[in-house]
Amino acid sequence: MTRLALTIEFDGTPFFGLQRQPHGPSVQQTVEDAAFKVTGEEVRLASAGRTDTGVHALAMRSHLDIEKDIEPFRLMQALNAQMRPDPVAVTHCAIVADDWHARFSCTARSYVYRIANRRAPLTLEKNRAWQVPQPLDADAMHEAAQALVGFHDFTTFRSVQCQSASPEKTLDRLDVVREGDHVLIHAAARSFLHHQVRSMVGCLALVGMGRWEIERVARALEAKDRQELGLNAPPHGLYFVEATYPDEA
Amino acid sequence: MTRLALTIEFDGTPFFGLQRQPHGPSVQQTVEDAAFKVTGEEVRLASAGRTDTGVHALAMRSHLDIEKDIEPFRLMQALNAQMRPDPVAVTHCAIVADDWHARFSCTARSYVYRIANRRAPLTLEKNRAWQVPQPLDADAMHEAAQALVGFHDFTTFRSVQCQSASPEKTLDRLDVVREGDHVLIHAAARSFLHHQVRSMVGCLALVGMGRWEIERVARALEAKDRQELGLNAPPHGLYFVEATYPDEA
Repeated sequence: MTRLALTIEFDGTPFFGLQRQPHGPSVQQTVEDAAFKVTGEEVRLASAGRTDTGVHALAMRSHLDIEKDIEPFRLMQALNAQMRPDPVAVTHCAIVADDWHARFSCTARSYVYRIANRRAPLTLEKNRAWQVPQPLDADAMHEAAQALVGFHDFTTFRSVQCQSASPEKTLDRLDVVREGDHVLIHAAARSFLHHQVRSMVGCLALVGMGRWEIERVARALEAKDRQELGLNAPPHGLYFVEATYPDEA
Repeated sequence: MTRLALTIEFDGTPFFGLQRQPHGPSVQQTVEDAAFKVTGEEVRLASAGRTDTGVHALAMRSHLDIEKDIEPFRLMQALNAQMRPDPVAVTHCAIVADDWHARFSCTARSYVYRIANRRAPLTLEKNRAWQVPQPLDADAMHEAAQALVGFHDFTTFRSVQCQSASPEKTLDRLDVVREGDHVLIHAAARSFLHHQVRSMVGCLALVGMGRWEIERVARALEAKDRQELGLNAPPHGLYFVEATYPDEA
């Protein structure tokens, strides 16, 4: 048995998320089906994060165990060939230690959320960003975001379906920057609750529109109450960017 | 009659090019049909450039003449509403002088060509860039490109369907820059021949791969012979970026 670490990029639009689902296509199933065609083995893909329908990944980190003797580069090429034309690509593949785990060894995750702040509907960026027509004050959004950084009970920003044992997490970074007519929100933490990034972005967008005062984000956090959530941003603006492992840091 | 200048962004993937075609959907027809629904008038869209099937535009410049009294901002909003879900958007609309012409008043055009220089198939950038798996030497490509800048007979880089009166054009700029795993080619001129950018990019890519020596691009130009063309780059990496008008310069 050889454990192989994969870096995976995908367009989340046609998938019911990363993890296997009974009711529709998933990235996990696409990779596992391709691996079966290549190796004849029923492998199971483990990944650093779970992503919802429509959420994208620039560099998801995953692993699978294979009995067949196959070079990592050849496996990557064969998986990519089998997955065409699905919008999933393995961009890196390497042998790792048997106890390296894409999910449990991961010590930090980061996401970026893309807002296209413009009136016109999206064309080239359709399903790649959240179009917000109202002018957003990115500086106010960034200021409001800083209240969320640190160790907090994020119950307000947690989906009711969240399976995490605790709502307490440490948010390491939440930066809002304007780049032309885009507003980008960069988030980093050891781990996130279900819908946490989208829920935080939704409330920051309300600040950016002037519908929420800056201080209301801190009050929503302190309320520890999902009812205080202003808005859950749509999934198609969210990208899983990076997973960090101690041996690579 | 009011002449309205439009700035148009589109994803060229589902269209048989910008200009109206008898055999399939075009950006021109999409805009004209929307204008008919909004105004009841059979308008005709004129544009700064012609683009092929699959070629994109970040800011095409066009105009149309309308009898109905309608504010530019309202026209833009109404056109965008009518064009949904087609990937065409009017990003700016303004009244211009009756003798302002999107095509004939235009004094400079620029394009960018995006190469994704990577082995893995494209996912989020599918139909948005040309994937070239061989490592490209962007510096060599840039050096080779400089032989094409200036006033030349571009017969080698001209489609056999080109309707331009003369193959002689002045190329103002052809810069090749690497940005991470992308190679971008920026081209600017008063006007271009049919397929000129894609033909130049194709030959530069051969230089980047090491299949052509740098000097061969200059020799291909001097040959004034379409048979000397090495490669025509595919349309989906090409973007119309900007049109310049004297009153705006």
